[in-house]
Amino acid sequence: LKIPGYTLDLGKVINKINSKEIKNIIIQIPEGLKIHFSRIVEKLESETDSNIIISGDPCFGACDLIDNKFKKIEIELIIQIGHTPIPSLKKYSSKTEYINAESDIDVSDVIMKAMPIIDKEKIGLVTTAQHIHMLKKVETLLKENNFKPIIGRGDKRIFYPGQIIGCNFTSASSVKNKVDTFLFIGSGSFHPIGLLMATEKPVIACDPYTKEVRIRELNDFKDMILRQRYGAIARSTNAKKFGIIIGAKIGQQRLERALEIKKLLKDNNKKAYLISMEYINSSILESYLDIDCFISTACPRIAIDDYMQYKTPIITPVELEILLKEKKWEEYKFDEIFE
Amino acid sequence: LKIPGYTLDLGKVINKINSKEIKNIIIQIPEGLKIHFSRIVEKLESETDSNIIISGDPCFGACDLIDNKFKKIEIELIIQIGHTPIPSLKKYSSKTEYINAESDIDVSDVIMKAMPIIDKEKIGLVTTAQHIHMLKKVETLLKENNFKPIIGRGDKRIFYPGQIIGCNFTSASSVKNKVDTFLFIGSGSFHPIGLLMATEKPVIACDPYTKEVRIRELNDFKDMILRQRYGAIARSTNAKKFGIIIGAKIGQQRLERALEIKKLLKDNNKKAYLISMEYINSSILESYLDIDCFISTACPRIAIDDYMQYKTPIITPVELEILLKEKKWEEYKFDEIFE
Repeated sequence: LKIPGYTLDLGKVINKINSKEIKNIIIQIPEGLKIHFSRIVEKLESETDSNIIISGDPCFGACDLIDNKFKKIEIELIIQIGHTPIPSLKKYSSKTEYINAESDIDVSDVIMKAMPIIDKEKIGLVTTAQHIHMLKKVETLLKENNFKPIIGRGDKRIFYPGQIIGCNFTSASSVKNKVDTFLFIGSGSFHPIGLLMATEKPVIACDPYTKEVRIRELNDFKDMILRQRYGAIARSTNAKKFGIIIGAKIGQQRLERALEIKKLLKDNNKKAYLISMEYINSSILESYLDIDCFISTACPRIAIDDYMQYKTPIITPVELEILLKEKKWEEYKFDEIFE
Repeated sequence: LKIPGYTLDLGKVINKINSKEIKNIIIQIPEGLKIHFSRIVEKLESETDSNIIISGDPCFGACDLIDNKFKKIEIELIIQIGHTPIPSLKKYSSKTEYINAESDIDVSDVIMKAMPIIDKEKIGLVTTAQHIHMLKKVETLLKENNFKPIIGRGDKRIFYPGQIIGCNFTSASSVKNKVDTFLFIGSGSFHPIGLLMATEKPVIACDPYTKEVRIRELNDFKDMILRQRYGAIARSTNAKKFGIIIGAKIGQQRLERALEIKKLLKDNNKKAYLISMEYINSSILESYLDIDCFISTACPRIAIDDYMQYKTPIITPVELEILLKEKKWEEYKFDEIFE
């Protein structure tokens, strides 16, 4: 199915629905693609004999596994659009079929534009799900131009070689000692900055939409984020009551880490409360007037992306360790999920 | 446990935790009581040997049943504060203990203030969970003053005689032919207006906090809401694409009603899409640019309470029937959940 800007390969899932005579289906669509929901639903309803229910709750990643919660029908299939599987969650996603949304944009232009700037030979190639099908082409292009592209394999949380997700950069860090620089293909700043912080290697970000090639801006942005993080830790120095946020979504749960943190805080004579949440945002945290500092063990983006929105500081587990002087600021690590 | 304004009887649940050696507990606290979360958690942690996890997602009623979703621990007990059980959901709430938050306020003052205004004899008494423990006292007071108070029993969705909830007024409607007027004890306008609309009997609302006694204001408010509802239907006359919202929360699911509505719309040559949602609000619905009108089969308050916030009209199932001329405006009914 073609939707503006993307191609969804629904053939396999349509065959599965028809051959297994699947009746009840939930479909998860990320916010950015939700405007095209009717095309997707109509395609599935016209080619199969199933009931499609759209999951209206926001879906930000493959970590957001849902299950049948209906009293009166059994959901036999969950289709998640726009994300790739998280292999380590296989046990919890047996009913889920992932359909990647492959961007139609050709990435060659921006790669060609980046080449004169690349003064290193060994290039680690990384990208996000929507451009992953272009990675082979980029590899060939770089080889033709006498570079040595390297595509690393991620850990059990990563499906495709060279793929990074907001909470896991192991496709890059697994090869960081073999490369001079990383070339990131994609838009936005969160992924390339995570990459910078997780690998501590130079990063060239190539945005196929804007055709921008960014290097210095990324480093400036990284420095700004580190200053914010330092500020969030500093603001929490005298905090007495801590709220430890546990992501309720299956793929964000780090319960053991949360319990460890609770113990660490108690050992430091701090009060600590565990709070599990599906949707974490600043307004929902405002009810906890007592809390001086939140620690998010859920999606790492939460503490970092929306920093300015939170009245009460929200920090990552590593940042808490720095706060409690278990670690030094020099040991700062970008929060990643490896389970 | 005393918290400002309320008493929570935690004794029974503490005994249960200790005698069954329960380790892992989730606690649901309504938004209005969340500011007191630390007292509740500390009471439970100090008197038992359990891990308390606060459910940070908003909890608006006993319909919001949650279950164990953690990968690595089993939640053995869910404590829901501030709500009473929904008997018909017993099958789904076997792990849930409900602790009512009983308001400390004495309701006698406002009842005494209301008496001179009551010109009828047979008074149907209704209230919400937080004042339900006062109902006997009010009954006695009214009897002493030569009224005939009547306390009705609700259907399988209602726990206490005389109790109403935002989606079910059967404690009142079951006795409406035996009473001259209803006396509602509680604050806010949603409950007494629902009562007016569901019973079509006069309602006197006594607010124990403000000591206000309202009759005419309620009727004016009801008229305004009916005008809004009429407007929402009128604005949808030419709607072609409908989004049918299914509440994902166990106690709000009316899937059969949703499927009925989908069929009705298809029979009327309209396009219809099913959308299931945990948290329904105006901003989340803005992604569905295609949709001309939403029909909410979830909590009845959603369509009515937040009317002004929605750019796209959101109507109740009965309102859709009026829109499609299956029912007349004169047959308008307040949306209630009876399952």
